[in-house]
Amino acid sequence: MPSPNIGPELQRLIDLLAKLPGLGPRSAKRAALHLLKKREPLMRPLAFALIDAADKVKACGTCGNWDSIDPCAICADASRDPGVLCVVQDVGDLWALERAGAHKGRYHVLGGLLSPLDGIGPNDLNIGSLVARVSVGGVKEVVLALPSTVDGQTTAHYLCDQLSSSRVSVTRLSQGVPVGGELDYLDEGTLAAAMKTRRPA
Amino acid sequence: MPSPNIGPELQRLIDLLAKLPGLGPRSAKRAALHLLKKREPLMRPLAFALIDAADKVKACGTCGNWDSIDPCAICADASRDPGVLCVVQDVGDLWALERAGAHKGRYHVLGGLLSPLDGIGPNDLNIGSLVARVSVGGVKEVVLALPSTVDGQTTAHYLCDQLSSSRVSVTRLSQGVPVGGELDYLDEGTLAAAMKTRRPA
Repeated sequence: MPSPNIGPELQRLIDLLAKLPGLGPRSAKRAALHLLKKREPLMRPLAFALIDAADKVKACGTCGNWDSIDPCAICADASRDPGVLCVVQDVGDLWALERAGAHKGRYHVLGGLLSPLDGIGPNDLNIGSLVARVSVGGVKEVVLALPSTVDGQTTAHYLCDQLSSSRVSVTRLSQGVPVGGELDYLDEGTLAAAMKTRRPA
Repeated sequence: MPSPNIGPELQRLIDLLAKLPGLGPRSAKRAALHLLKKREPLMRPLAFALIDAADKVKACGTCGNWDSIDPCAICADASRDPGVLCVVQDVGDLWALERAGAHKGRYHVLGGLLSPLDGIGPNDLNIGSLVARVSVGGVKEVVLALPSTVDGQTTAHYLCDQLSSSRVSVTRLSQGVPVGGELDYLDEGTLAAAMKTRRPA
């Protein structure tokens, strides 16, 4: 609800800031005040960074990662193994795997998950381009790094089906106890999975 | 720490978003992804709203409130009582009082609190303009709506001193149990204050 005594320019800024994930109506007001106090060091640079990124950042034509160059820095990096493709839902998941240094191959960003309930089918995702990429040859393994949710499992099954005709090996991330995790706080599904796939100590 | 495989435009946007209060490095990445998915409905409008507000929103020459008109909408509102001035630390506090509909007079925004430790003295705040505003006449009461902190109390005492030569009555917000608050969770200082200033039921 707009406050009667906030000017239209300020109210508009607050309304737009409140649409960012992690900011609600109150923290958007706080952010707007903070920005107005730092017009030259933060407010104007942020405006230009938004325009710059909106203009230059594009989805990589090969893998779907967001970068200002195409192919993206990961696809263009000759030191990365082109034989292992890691399939992720979103660019945020790609960043998480990069932060962990967990993958030395290339990626393929689906742009979402299959979700019959939300009406998201195979043609809404970058699945055709994944199958095409694999069928060209050179890929030995496809790692499905998808979330352990119903939609994630549905998507993983569908991708296994689609890739079954190629001779690529399809793997998925293992499930188990998080590093540093207390057993007491883990859900039963994870505990059961960790027990089932137990390994020699 | 910048991730090696995020392009410079995107990294710059994430770094600036992370400087907003309420957003950390991870939520800034999430916000950047959200913005890139909504370039036309959110990202570009936010950039233009930032520039527009940075250009147009100014401190009111009378009270220090932020608005795109000067005097601000509150100072220009003839239906508000010019005889009661509410002194606040910041525009955010003014908004909070407006949201509560708690004050029908005008405001005076100090722009901070006296803080000997941080080197903030009377000349760094809008105190001279408050004294001048009161000395012109027409103001019957000055309500100090300042926080119950050491700096807030210091500032309140200093303002009482400065205003003592004028014949204006200086009041402050009462302290006590918050509406809907459980006694059990209140600090001892607030409980003691509420008991000391108890009123007939």
